Amino acid sequence: MKGKVYLVGAGPGDPELLTLKALRLLRTAEAVLHDDLVAREILALIPPSAQIYNVGKRCGKKKISQAEINSLMVALAGFGLRVIRLKGGDPLIFGRAGEEIEALRANAIPFEIVPGVTSALGAAAAAEIPLTHRRASSALVFVTAHKASGKRGSEKDGSDWSNLVLSGATLVIYMPGQDYAEIARRLTAAGLPGDTPCAVISRASAKSQQTHRTTVRSLVSTPQLAAPTLLVVGEVVALGDPATQVAEHLLPQLSLRDGSLLPSALFQDVAFTNADTGSR
Amino acid sequence: MKGKVYLVGAGPGDPELLTLKALRLLRTAEAVLHDDLVAREILALIPPSAQIYNVGKRCGKKKISQAEINSLMVALAGFGLRVIRLKGGDPLIFGRAGEEIEALRANAIPFEIVPGVTSALGAAAAAEIPLTHRRASSALVFVTAHKASGKRGSEKDGSDWSNLVLSGATLVIYMPGQDYAEIARRLTAAGLPGDTPCAVISRASAKSQQTHRTTVRSLVSTPQLAAPTLLVVGEVVALGDPATQVAEHLLPQLSLRDGSLLPSALFQDVAFTNADTGSR
Repeated sequence: MKGKVYLVGAGPGDPELLTLKALRLLRTAEAVLHDDLVAREILALIPPSAQIYNVGKRCGKKKISQAEINSLMVALAGFGLRVIRLKGGDPLIFGRAGEEIEALRANAIPFEIVPGVTSALGAAAAAEIPLTHRRASSALVFVTAHKASGKRGSEKDGSDWSNLVLSGATLVIYMPGQDYAEIARRLTAAGLPGDTPCAVISRASAKSQQTHRTTVRSLVSTPQLAAPTLLVVGEVVALGDPATQVAEHLLPQLSLRDGSLLPSALFQDVAFTNADTGSR
Repeated sequence: MKGKVYLVGAGPGDPELLTLKALRLLRTAEAVLHDDLVAREILALIPPSAQIYNVGKRCGKKKISQAEINSLMVALAGFGLRVIRLKGGDPLIFGRAGEEIEALRANAIPFEIVPGVTSALGAAAAAEIPLTHRRASSALVFVTAHKASGKRGSEKDGSDWSNLVLSGATLVIYMPGQDYAEIARRLTAAGLPGDTPCAVISRASAKSQQTHRTTVRSLVSTPQLAAPTLLVVGEVVALGDPATQVAEHLLPQLSLRDGSLLPSALFQDVAFTNADTGSR
């Protein structure tokens, strides 16, 4: 008898940002392998009968290797258990899910992937930063500050951000670490002006969340903030700060009517009451 | 008396991919302004007493302008209502939330942003594509195929993908439309080899979901798939296809133990039962 593995995203931190599907699966789990970043309130949803394994790597310090996590997952499913591999944010972004999927396939273990709210979205929502903007940024890039030990040349190991920065995209750096001087150096080397707005968001969506707004030039003076942190870089960051004067060229073309109360008759063709929806 | 506006992500389609917070807010909504892409099952969660407005732009055909949406939102909150602005996916990605936030601020309307599972994550989960991979891609880029009518030069209007493509990142194209010949032309012009794997995912996470796997060269032969669609481009797409032989260099470094059942003693230091968790 073979079990099944669910690769599930736990969202950015706030237990209310769990999906309904993740909640349903956690409540019926027989074994859970979770990251360090998953909130205690979320772990509390797991039934007392389930086996729980913390397979997190705190601050890069490995308690368990990726190969061991893969093997444990395969073993538990092999025993016929309903296994949840619970990851912070979304399982398919910087979560090494690719390697876990390969192990599951190699061992013919049935699996399913349940997406989650990735940390960048939790952080942007909390700091009120629109990640794309019709006038300021038409692309969004997620990278990690970590230099992978890949052997395929610099364009794959993410050490050179020039191309990404030149595109004019909003840049979100996952796991920036504490070496902001090095990050500022890389962003500057990639071609970003020193006055480019940045925000460091600590513990996004949690009650203890903090946001530090700065620029590439002043990034080095960022205070020590509690992990996990996330760095958003780009013109849109200024749009997120109510205290910042929005540059004229970033403003949407406002019609004269904009911001004023419109006569409701204008919306007659788009508004409908519940009685009109048919299927409800 | 002033109401409040909640900018809420409805997720990629499957009602179970709604967050717990989105569900709670929808159940207590007094007015809802929703996009076309939001599923009927999700709209059915809104109380019958609430006013519901479809403010979607189907296939780019506007029923209502952005300025009108902003004004309606401000007006409803001005009447003291608890207003939900419900958007497909996440509200801060390609949703023009930036402009809505500016309108809310300009009118001193309290608001809150509730992140959601963005469509790319729903699509990748369904097609089992790891969006980043330690050996294949260390960055993830979201763009739209739509050329904005910005006046700030080509680097801002997203028409040139060269820089993004050169970075070696996985590329997710939101709203690719039906002109795949033009998209293939732009990808090729940006420097992508013709054999780069692609996947078109239609109605991600919905029951009627379909995935079409192809390459940049053969993209033009993509069948007509039901909207909304999403295009994923990059080496990771091949990792998502069980039928594809995984290239040797993309495989994780497997230890001899990998894939076999490990003695449970190995995990004594990471495993804990519920009795050990203390706070549970």
